[in-house]
Amino acid sequence: MTPADFRLSARALALKASEIRELLKLVGKPSMISFAGGIPDPALFNLGLFQAACHEAFGGPQVAREALQYSTTEGYLPLRQWIASHMQSLGVPAGADNVLVTTGSQQALDLIGKLLIDPGSTVLTARPTYLGALQSFSAYQPRFAQLDAPQAAGDDAPRLVYVMPDFANPTGQSMSRAARSRALDQAQLANAVIVEDAAYTALRYDGEPLPSIAALDAAATGSIEATRTLYCGSFSKTLAPGMRVGWICGPTALIRKLTMLKQGADLHTATVNQMVIHHVAAAGFDDQVQRIRAVYRSRRDAMLAALTRYAVPGMSWSRPEGGMFIWLELPGHIDAAQLLQRAIRADVAFVPGGAFFPDGTGRNTLRLSFALCDEARIEVGIFKLCELIGHTAMAKAANA
Amino acid sequence: MTPADFRLSARALALKASEIRELLKLVGKPSMISFAGGIPDPALFNLGLFQAACHEAFGGPQVAREALQYSTTEGYLPLRQWIASHMQSLGVPAGADNVLVTTGSQQALDLIGKLLIDPGSTVLTARPTYLGALQSFSAYQPRFAQLDAPQAAGDDAPRLVYVMPDFANPTGQSMSRAARSRALDQAQLANAVIVEDAAYTALRYDGEPLPSIAALDAAATGSIEATRTLYCGSFSKTLAPGMRVGWICGPTALIRKLTMLKQGADLHTATVNQMVIHHVAAAGFDDQVQRIRAVYRSRRDAMLAALTRYAVPGMSWSRPEGGMFIWLELPGHIDAAQLLQRAIRADVAFVPGGAFFPDGTGRNTLRLSFALCDEARIEVGIFKLCELIGHTAMAKAANA
Repeated sequence: MTPADFRLSARALALKASEIRELLKLVGKPSMISFAGGIPDPALFNLGLFQAACHEAFGGPQVAREALQYSTTEGYLPLRQWIASHMQSLGVPAGADNVLVTTGSQQALDLIGKLLIDPGSTVLTARPTYLGALQSFSAYQPRFAQLDAPQAAGDDAPRLVYVMPDFANPTGQSMSRAARSRALDQAQLANAVIVEDAAYTALRYDGEPLPSIAALDAAATGSIEATRTLYCGSFSKTLAPGMRVGWICGPTALIRKLTMLKQGADLHTATVNQMVIHHVAAAGFDDQVQRIRAVYRSRRDAMLAALTRYAVPGMSWSRPEGGMFIWLELPGHIDAAQLLQRAIRADVAFVPGGAFFPDGTGRNTLRLSFALCDEARIEVGIFKLCELIGHTAMAKAANA
Repeated sequence: MTPADFRLSARALALKASEIRELLKLVGKPSMISFAGGIPDPALFNLGLFQAACHEAFGGPQVAREALQYSTTEGYLPLRQWIASHMQSLGVPAGADNVLVTTGSQQALDLIGKLLIDPGSTVLTARPTYLGALQSFSAYQPRFAQLDAPQAAGDDAPRLVYVMPDFANPTGQSMSRAARSRALDQAQLANAVIVEDAAYTALRYDGEPLPSIAALDAAATGSIEATRTLYCGSFSKTLAPGMRVGWICGPTALIRKLTMLKQGADLHTATVNQMVIHHVAAAGFDDQVQRIRAVYRSRRDAMLAALTRYAVPGMSWSRPEGGMFIWLELPGHIDAAQLLQRAIRADVAFVPGGAFFPDGTGRNTLRLSFALCDEARIEVGIFKLCELIGHTAMAKAANA
């Protein structure tokens, strides 16, 4: 759990500043088994490739000066070209002009919100959904409504449909091919833009990849220029989040408008970061993805096995095919926020699920990340957590 | 002139896309003498220090993993501490909690606009003023009004006062101490926040530094926590713009709100960039500033001397004590945008002044940057430019 991550969920849970400070101290303990942060294991970063990339960027004076100078808002051309061919490999017929490099995919969400949301605009999302997307969009004062619920026509028609089709944060669940087509149809009917957040897409551990909504859209319309999908990609979960490099891929007309807004937001993404990410991606994206998949797959398997082993009656959880998260429902109306305070004192951390619902529901759910702990710590952490859930359920039953 | 910079002014001048493309080709010619871009000379970047800083950041696996991982939204603590002590040296009694690291100072402007501007809010600025500030704020639909013009009370009271007190972009002019106090009084009366854009403050070539508005504010109120000034600093003009590292310094209550908005905007500024900028600043900020001041001072002197030598009757220009820009008024209602098209064909570039006015005035003004050319090129460029202005004035007189 990054402190920012923790504070965000703590705020969503309406903890007092003093409580947040106290919990933050506990979360930072080395003995803590954290299933909280949706962040990659830093032991998996390819340090050698990053070192080589930095060496190249600062190797000769001419390249070094380019790396340190202002650059264009749309992004470093070789990186945009690499991303375009990556998108082609996913079935999206993109060229470099269809790609805007962003300062992490968080900025992609912010720019899209800025372009498309006016106060009161309807945004459709799954429930629960990614907290960072809600936070980015909230700055533009939309009305959030639930995807797949019946929508009114006219003024209330959604302007934006936000989805994370693969291994969603926080549930770990993926949309079926039919659900992807349905979301596309719903957006088409409302003349809305679809934001396809693909932050975890590369992290598949089982099963066959499903087509991205951007690919379905392009296949149906015949050209990326006729699509209504903005695909948001990220190097944060595959190469390194601290570099803050992501992208938006979509029709040129929307990409141009988003580029204008990015110019006002931060001029451009740091030049050297784009050069370094390009070097690392070009030299070893596929190898890196294969390597981290193997590690995370084994951790997911360990967490699912431990949950099966130690589960308390009434608990249920998702079985994700990829990503970083397992979603847990607690038995007997146990409040996950209250459970967290006790869990942290037992050296186990997670994110209470209520934080991910815009409407204050989901208090008996929680998100577990298996990305950051090895199999042994996962075993112990899940054992402790299930024990705590069992005690809490028994205490509730005794008081009832 | 960066392509983005050029495109922005080209759009402000309502050029067609085909005209922009043609001019962009010409601007990129190596023979072009460019007085256009407000960008530092890359030959002055301290490559050795940046190399050493990168080497440190990727030296050991533990530091490298920290450099590549997510970090806190408010910024890397050693950098915030360095910035706080830098602010103290400018007379602003800041601690690390008064500092938010931003993705360049452009992001500072965007976050401040997002926090404080609602559609129709009044923002006071000088005329002309920095285009990037107008662009950032415009996303939040304010009404722009002129600083120092009489203001109405009540609903129309300004929410934000935007100033660049030292060597402003585009005029090169500085606010007197009295003007700084007046701006502070005006903001106080309206209960508005002052944005003090200090992008060029370190680049002083003559005269004594004037106190920053943040320092005047803190001195008057007795504590930074009681101030209404958000000081926006940048490493772009001193160390390197491509790193995209800037900061906001102000009262903790506002810094906390801006931190929340930054979390939605890009989570945090790239970790490694903050570590590298901290290393370079701690090892050699003062030396670097002294070195670039000497070079830019000599270029400013060369441009002022050449203007005096080749001036055409009716031309006037600013004599800045620092920064990167000289502001020129053309004689006889010559249109600077039309002049630019001819100048570019003669291998000289500048930014027409009309681009810097929100109201379409200033068409007979232009901005010259002396930062990017050596003295010999400045001499030739100003000679050519003045010759062209002379011809244009004569042709106008003959047609009149």
